[in-house]
Amino acid sequence: MLGFLQRLMPQDGDFFVLFQKQSENIVAGARAFTDLLEHYTAVPEQVQCIKALEHNGDEITHQIFRKLNQTFITPFDREDIHELCGTMDDVIDLIDAAASRFVLYRVARIRPGTIELSKVLAAATVEVNSAIHSMESPDQALQRVIEINRLENESDRICRTLIAQLFDEDTDPVQIIKWKEIFEVMETAVDKCEDVSNVIESVILKNA
Amino acid sequence: MLGFLQRLMPQDGDFFVLFQKQSENIVAGARAFTDLLEHYTAVPEQVQCIKALEHNGDEITHQIFRKLNQTFITPFDREDIHELCGTMDDVIDLIDAAASRFVLYRVARIRPGTIELSKVLAAATVEVNSAIHSMESPDQALQRVIEINRLENESDRICRTLIAQLFDEDTDPVQIIKWKEIFEVMETAVDKCEDVSNVIESVILKNA
Amino acid sequence: MLGFLQRLMPQDGDFFVLFQKQSENIVAGARAFTDLLEHYTAVPEQVQCIKALEHNGDEITHQIFRKLNQTFITPFDREDIHELCGTMDDVIDLIDAAASRFVLYRVARIRPGTIELSKVLAAATVEVNSAIHSMESPDQALQRVIEINRLENESDRICRTLIAQLFDEDTDPVQIIKWKEIFEVMETAVDKCEDVSNVIESVILKNA
Repeated sequence: MLGFLQRLMPQDGDFFVLFQKQSENIVAGARAFTDLLEHYTAVPEQVQCIKALEHNGDEITHQIFRKLNQTFITPFDREDIHELCGTMDDVIDLIDAAASRFVLYRVARIRPGTIELSKVLAAATVEVNSAIHSMESPDQALQRVIEINRLENESDRICRTLIAQLFDEDTDPVQIIKWKEIFEVMETAVDKCEDVSNVIESVILKNA
Repeated sequence: MLGFLQRLMPQDGDFFVLFQKQSENIVAGARAFTDLLEHYTAVPEQVQCIKALEHNGDEITHQIFRKLNQTFITPFDREDIHELCGTMDDVIDLIDAAASRFVLYRVARIRPGTIELSKVLAAATVEVNSAIHSMESPDQALQRVIEINRLENESDRICRTLIAQLFDEDTDPVQIIKWKEIFEVMETAVDKCEDVSNVIESVILKNA
Repeated sequence: MLGFLQRLMPQDGDFFVLFQKQSENIVAGARAFTDLLEHYTAVPEQVQCIKALEHNGDEITHQIFRKLNQTFITPFDREDIHELCGTMDDVIDLIDAAASRFVLYRVARIRPGTIELSKVLAAATVEVNSAIHSMESPDQALQRVIEINRLENESDRICRTLIAQLFDEDTDPVQIIKWKEIFEVMETAVDKCEDVSNVIESVILKNA
């Protein structure tokens, strides 16, 4: 596996450059989302910034798909490139979906615990980014994969607790509908980080 | 790419005939769904007709899968045939799921804006059908793909507006639960039209 | 097709042993879930037992993925092994998700009809297990596939009826939110049994 990246043709390296752009974009999205929740002023403008990152993600995804369709020899399995690119795109889409709901649902104040969940999401994106950047060092990348799994379990636990609290504390069903969905979309974003890490693990093991 | 279809064996042509049957079935489903909403009389009977189209779709899907499993040389990648067929089946399943909810939820009257959303869905199915029928003319097919992307953005915008209005105007949480789901199922049907168009684009680029 | 399994290398047989462990684990999960509903005492403990089965399923899934990545010649298509393993894992995940909601949502009593739906789910898992155990006898396996399709239609019908009753009988929107989700998660578990059966059918037809 040593020299996995080095064995690649120059043009194959471009795939990794694009994956890194994609994972850095996800980190930026999750950070902007935590910022939004922590300050919660100028909400429509901040949501608009996250939407711009989502568009940026679409652009990179499209570049990768176009490159994939035009490249005969790819650095690893075609379907894994497709999956890696698609799951990273899902992460930024879900961050945008969560953010836009604060405007759409006219959320006046942030429920306690929401920021805790967003920090786990942000940590998961940082690990995804590290894993993508260390794909040529399998041991390091696999450490990141393990950490992403741990963060996914943590986000699952936090999300369940937040929803249980929601039903216990809030008697307004409309608030329950809105917040339950926000928590679930955030948790699904972390699930997708785990999907990314599963593809990375699989690529590394196949090429070991 | 010119002569892409012409290069195919006679039996491969059958795949395209089946795809065309499937896309025509989707157009019929979306048209019946808009009819249902525009007249909104004899609702259970109209919903039953859409259910029949969904069964018809299952039948065609099953024929394609059987053919795929028995054919050694396919006109394009086996997994793309599977994906194309599966996503078109999803479209008709979701149209049926949306329609059946009007009976299941005893919906008495159609909320304003619902027909607008169903027209975007119907337009997207017409474009999917055109794209499938023009796969041998890549430039034309790619024009349809671009139009489907535009319609998906539009349906997304309409759906968000309708849900925001729902929360603003309706104070009955039960109505919110029912209509939110109906709008989301309709929007997901348009998403699936975009998934179909992504497979078409990918098939065309690979065979260019 | 006769002798399909017999033609396999010893190490390939291990895949089938792992699939059988996975399908037996699903049967155990669905049975424990029906038990939970039928007695509905010591609920947190019973939910904990189902969670343990879900962890067990993760363990087996991980073993299959690891084996898949390290095996050069597989008994059938690599992507079908991945799909078979992934969909079986989805079944136990959804059974666990349904079970955990009874604790999370502090459900005091079981609504009529819930056990009926859980019995259809349990029957579907028994059929999946039979299909997995009879993959070397295609005719028997295909009979199981047909039966799973029938059970999925039945679960769909029951789920729709239960949700319609829920909206008709219950005026508390919070109860509607909770039970609608529980029914939908249970129905999705049966859908996933059908996904498993589709992969089995496809593997059998390809190798016929």
